[in-house]
Amino acid sequence: MTTQPKLPPIGPLDEAAMAAARRRLDNLTKPQGSLGRLEDVAAWLAGVQGKELPSVKLRTIFVAAADHGVAAREVSAYPSEVTAQMVENFLAGGAAINVLARQANAEVIVIDAGVRVDLGQRPGLASERIGPGTQDFSAGPAMSREQASRCIEVGLRLAEGTRADVVGCGEMGIGNTTAASAVTAALLGLAPRQVTGRGTGVDPAGYERKVAAIERALATNAPDRNDALDVLAKVGGFEIGVLAGLMVGLAARRRAALVDGFISGAAALIAVGLAPAARDYLAASHLSTEPGHALILRELGLEPLLDLRLRLGEGTGAALAMHVLEGACRVIGEMSTFEDAGVSRKTELDE
Amino acid sequence: MTTQPKLPPIGPLDEAAMAAARRRLDNLTKPQGSLGRLEDVAAWLAGVQGKELPSVKLRTIFVAAADHGVAAREVSAYPSEVTAQMVENFLAGGAAINVLARQANAEVIVIDAGVRVDLGQRPGLASERIGPGTQDFSAGPAMSREQASRCIEVGLRLAEGTRADVVGCGEMGIGNTTAASAVTAALLGLAPRQVTGRGTGVDPAGYERKVAAIERALATNAPDRNDALDVLAKVGGFEIGVLAGLMVGLAARRRAALVDGFISGAAALIAVGLAPAARDYLAASHLSTEPGHALILRELGLEPLLDLRLRLGEGTGAALAMHVLEGACRVIGEMSTFEDAGVSRKTELDE
Repeated sequence: MTTQPKLPPIGPLDEAAMAAARRRLDNLTKPQGSLGRLEDVAAWLAGVQGKELPSVKLRTIFVAAADHGVAAREVSAYPSEVTAQMVENFLAGGAAINVLARQANAEVIVIDAGVRVDLGQRPGLASERIGPGTQDFSAGPAMSREQASRCIEVGLRLAEGTRADVVGCGEMGIGNTTAASAVTAALLGLAPRQVTGRGTGVDPAGYERKVAAIERALATNAPDRNDALDVLAKVGGFEIGVLAGLMVGLAARRRAALVDGFISGAAALIAVGLAPAARDYLAASHLSTEPGHALILRELGLEPLLDLRLRLGEGTGAALAMHVLEGACRVIGEMSTFEDAGVSRKTELDE
Repeated sequence: MTTQPKLPPIGPLDEAAMAAARRRLDNLTKPQGSLGRLEDVAAWLAGVQGKELPSVKLRTIFVAAADHGVAAREVSAYPSEVTAQMVENFLAGGAAINVLARQANAEVIVIDAGVRVDLGQRPGLASERIGPGTQDFSAGPAMSREQASRCIEVGLRLAEGTRADVVGCGEMGIGNTTAASAVTAALLGLAPRQVTGRGTGVDPAGYERKVAAIERALATNAPDRNDALDVLAKVGGFEIGVLAGLMVGLAARRRAALVDGFISGAAALIAVGLAPAARDYLAASHLSTEPGHALILRELGLEPLLDLRLRLGEGTGAALAMHVLEGACRVIGEMSTFEDAGVSRKTELDE
């Protein structure tokens, strides 16, 4: 028997609440459908939360951080030390995610899922270390199947503990676009070069090292694309696994999950591989410039809310997309109906 | 001598402030350029405001409302009475723009630029009536050249009086997608059918009436595409003219102007036709589903910040885009630098 995390049951979206939301939207003082995706988001949130008037008052951004053995192959423009340094920056409130989360009135919770240096227990930091970084997956599996299972369990536990109405799924980890590319290539059955970009901005020689490392990883480890946990173990990362578990757990608790960029998208692929019903509780906050991201979103059938050419991660796209979700909730909750406002409907003539 | 409004001088964007903003952005704890368009917006706002750290604290959305004689040709799904009814809805706070402006912490100022019924002087309403709606431009000019000039002067005066750092340019007027299509066809030299959409949702027969009315308008009035005021007078609308004047005036005062949807875009074409330098002070908040809007933005060289399939107007896209502008200002103003945060820069290896 192989190790498998115990996954919670996930119910379908609430169709009755979605239909009630659509009826209400059609009765507000605007041409039907004229608020486009804002209306779609409102109806989706109604389905997620099981109520005609959804709310995204409580907002959290989880930033899962971990290190990657493959970084030793010089696949990134930055050294591994930057992972821990950026966690310190998150805790001090000076990173992009802190700034954009403050704007979005969202709490930031940083998860040490396995940074090379143990950062200890600190305010704003949840220590959930699976190990001191993964192994170099170009030479063998990134982690054991047991460790992969523990990643998922950590994410499930984080989801169980949250009170947030909407959760942004962000990450930090030098080398993690390499892991995300490997996961994406494995799960979508694509060549590494098709799904690999320049990450934080590696130079052309570094890009070739990155592609070669992923090619070796897939050849050496032969991950089974029909077994998402196997893919996570062999070519994933601790933060990717934690986010995948978080997404499954949020779906089970009927909480909206905002997928952020490419690494968060790779986590979504694993989440949906483990629990296909989780997909309905995901929204894509933005479209990253990493080439693999669009392929992931197409596979998942998710349309990004924003396209601002972001390629930072940390949950920054999710923080920005929270304004769109809030706008959707305010529209359905606060706009007047035709009757209330005494506004004429469409002319008979044109019906 | 033909009537021409006296236009204020418009200076160039402040290149030194933009360069300083770019240097600062490159020094913040993120890979260079990784915040994509957020960085572009921050640098643009620096150029507009002439300071390295721009601000969009004070926000206003002007909603210019007016009626259109061409509505008698049954070109819209809604009767003309809806213009005044929607103004009442704006004043009561129940319309989409009220809801989204509250979210964006923006003040809404409604301009009666020429609604059929005189709505008087009321709190939140600026009465700047050019007339009780335009004439039916499928049979003759929409307004006189003097009236067109007065529209511009009203907009310039509104810009002079505002304290806002950023202004959303919204509108309301049954029949005004017909006017915007006519203006766009005239100024871009395109066939009416290429730039005409279904507006608030007119049926196929109504769509044909709409295209035919615009074709007759252009044939009857022969607007001169090299004279934006002539185009405004012959096939425009009072609210379109007021927004055009507003955009020119905001540029002269170095205030950022957010173009909203298709009608606001037609106003931008007129603004830039009158004062080409105004273009640098415009940002496109979103891409409307009206087919003419993408053509306008291409002509102006503006890339929309959002693409949410909105087609409502009122300034709703501008209100949503204000969150992106605020995010840009917060990033440049609040993020830590590499030095402050003790984060390593790119490795020598990859330089």
